[in-house]
Amino acid sequence: MRKVDVCLTPELLHLYGVKNRVVVIVDILRATSCMTVAIANGVEKIIPVAKLEECQSLRQKGCVGAAERDGKMPEGFDLGNSPLAYLNNAYAGKTIAMTTTNGTLAISKSKDAEEVIIGSFLNKTAVINYLISQPNDVLIVCAGWKGKVNLEDTLFAGAVVEGLKDHFEIENDAVIASATLYNYAKKDMLDYLSACSHVKRLKNLHIQKDIEFCLREDQFNVIPVLKEDALVDMEKLVLT
Amino acid sequence: MRKVDVCLTPELLHLYGVKNRVVVIVDILRATSCMTVAIANGVEKIIPVAKLEECQSLRQKGCVGAAERDGKMPEGFDLGNSPLAYLNNAYAGKTIAMTTTNGTLAISKSKDAEEVIIGSFLNKTAVINYLISQPNDVLIVCAGWKGKVNLEDTLFAGAVVEGLKDHFEIENDAVIASATLYNYAKKDMLDYLSACSHVKRLKNLHIQKDIEFCLREDQFNVIPVLKEDALVDMEKLVLT
Repeated sequence: MRKVDVCLTPELLHLYGVKNRVVVIVDILRATSCMTVAIANGVEKIIPVAKLEECQSLRQKGCVGAAERDGKMPEGFDLGNSPLAYLNNAYAGKTIAMTTTNGTLAISKSKDAEEVIIGSFLNKTAVINYLISQPNDVLIVCAGWKGKVNLEDTLFAGAVVEGLKDHFEIENDAVIASATLYNYAKKDMLDYLSACSHVKRLKNLHIQKDIEFCLREDQFNVIPVLKEDALVDMEKLVLT
Repeated sequence: MRKVDVCLTPELLHLYGVKNRVVVIVDILRATSCMTVAIANGVEKIIPVAKLEECQSLRQKGCVGAAERDGKMPEGFDLGNSPLAYLNNAYAGKTIAMTTTNGTLAISKSKDAEEVIIGSFLNKTAVINYLISQPNDVLIVCAGWKGKVNLEDTLFAGAVVEGLKDHFEIENDAVIASATLYNYAKKDMLDYLSACSHVKRLKNLHIQKDIEFCLREDQFNVIPVLKEDALVDMEKLVLT
């Protein structure tokens, strides 16, 4: 039976190992939510980069520059980290260079995986159905906050585990913990998360609408997948 | 207001910092449960050491040698890691040299703290009352399993957080997550933990009695505290 495991922060990734596994990157507030919306709204590809300088350099070569540090957009970029900015095909056909505090680091640490896909509540069922359909073990990698565990990514990991539990064997206690937390919180995730540190941080930045949007389930039937250092629409990849 | 934080594995301890904090070391199955029972049953002191060789060397100098690796006692020691062995004052007045897979590492990584104390379900309320009575911030350090997060230590962290929440400010999401998990599981922790990896591991070693014992709350009104590289009874320390 295939196995599913959960790594609660990239800081623990060296204890797992990504080889021969499909890795699901999770950064609910807000990197992987942004990526989901962007790809669903026709963005051609997203190049995740670790540093602001790389992002600026790609921007000067013609990419749209999306950057976030500590929840805010640094000066000199086109976009911050709001998923709402990509709605209505606002950036359809464009290539986005994106750097965020946690999410892009989780991607770069997972590059040796069999496949790297992007998960968020917005494409939850698409992700679950894809994972069930493919043959490999699964590792869900939560981006966390500066190395520490966060609640919103853990809840999403639990949501995926719930979807996979009849098809996959559970590997570690973090899998059980995340599923318990999701089942506890799912009736009103916004209420449960209102006490959590990153939601407090974002509320201070007046982006309550982003938070509410990122917690909606199954808005898009799309899976961003990493292909040669850029995220693209899995469906388009299959067709080409 | 004083703060309470939870570090879910020693592998993340570098992100926290122990200075000026009281650190509570948690290794429910079974190191800190053993330490609680031992001190409550008159053991003079416990010297936690990282390596089997150090433990053996102290044993040859007259200590009782307690050693555990992967749940089992290696050859050539006096005791394994069963808390039941210390009952009925079996080792009263003795000095124990102790090495375990996870717990003793968590202690050695926390040595720069203001104070290091030992927590387990067996002395839960004694630990909570002491933490409320003293002036410092608190960091609960779960020993985990070989660097990964485990359920039983997380549940105990949540139990302590529940006891402290009216007196301490919550610092991070791991604090909220652990309290939610404890409140969910507390009615029947043995049942909840029956799916968890370490309980499965220990069941295979036929030490079900140890597991049941380690989950009993408030059996002993005692706090082992680290004093010059050895754990001693806090009450005796105050008297001398």
